[in-house]
Amino acid sequence: MVTKPPYYAVIFTSIRTDADHGYAEMAQQMENLAQQQEGFLGLESAREAIGITVSYWESLDAIAQWKQNTDHLIAQQKGIKEWYKNYKVRICFVEREYDFNK
Amino acid sequence: MVTKPPYYAVIFTSIRTDADHGYAEMAQQMENLAQQQEGFLGLESAREAIGITVSYWESLDAIAQWKQNTDHLIAQQKGIKEWYKNYKVRICFVEREYDFNK
Repeated sequence: MVTKPPYYAVIFTSIRTDADHGYAEMAQQMENLAQQQEGFLGLESAREAIGITVSYWESLDAIAQWKQNTDHLIAQQKGIKEWYKNYKVRICFVEREYDFNK
Repeated sequence: MVTKPPYYAVIFTSIRTDADHGYAEMAQQMENLAQQQEGFLGLESAREAIGITVSYWESLDAIAQWKQNTDHLIAQQKGIKEWYKNYKVRICFVEREYDFNK
């Protein structure tokens, strides 16, 4: 990801249920779909006891558009019904960043 | 975590080297130490191909203090020398949040 701040991050943390029912496929589809959205900058994800997915966006408007994407809305509903015990979404303004590369 | 926005998040993403040398112990120690810092609100962490640790703070000043903590500085140096191929730190202002609980 080459974009420099300021930009936005959405931190999505979740605890899964035991139900599977196509969760991995949906997660991959949503990642592919997000990448096609206007203003999408990147996405990073890992799950152990808790799942953390951080997606990066050019603007709050891009985040709002993605939230309202039809296929994403369907996935959100299925997430609430089947896949997640709980989740939390945080909308963040990325002010500063620094990195290290070997 | 009961604090409501606005507050701050530090998104730390990393790729590990193959070296272990006490990484898990250090990670646990740093989590314990962070919890004792003034202004610390919470921490969430997961690692698969990439590691994502998000810590939450009351203020930018609390983040700066934590970055300069002596034991944390030692861990940062060891991280650069041994544990991480690369990492990225993003300092974020959490504007808004919402959640779902079953």
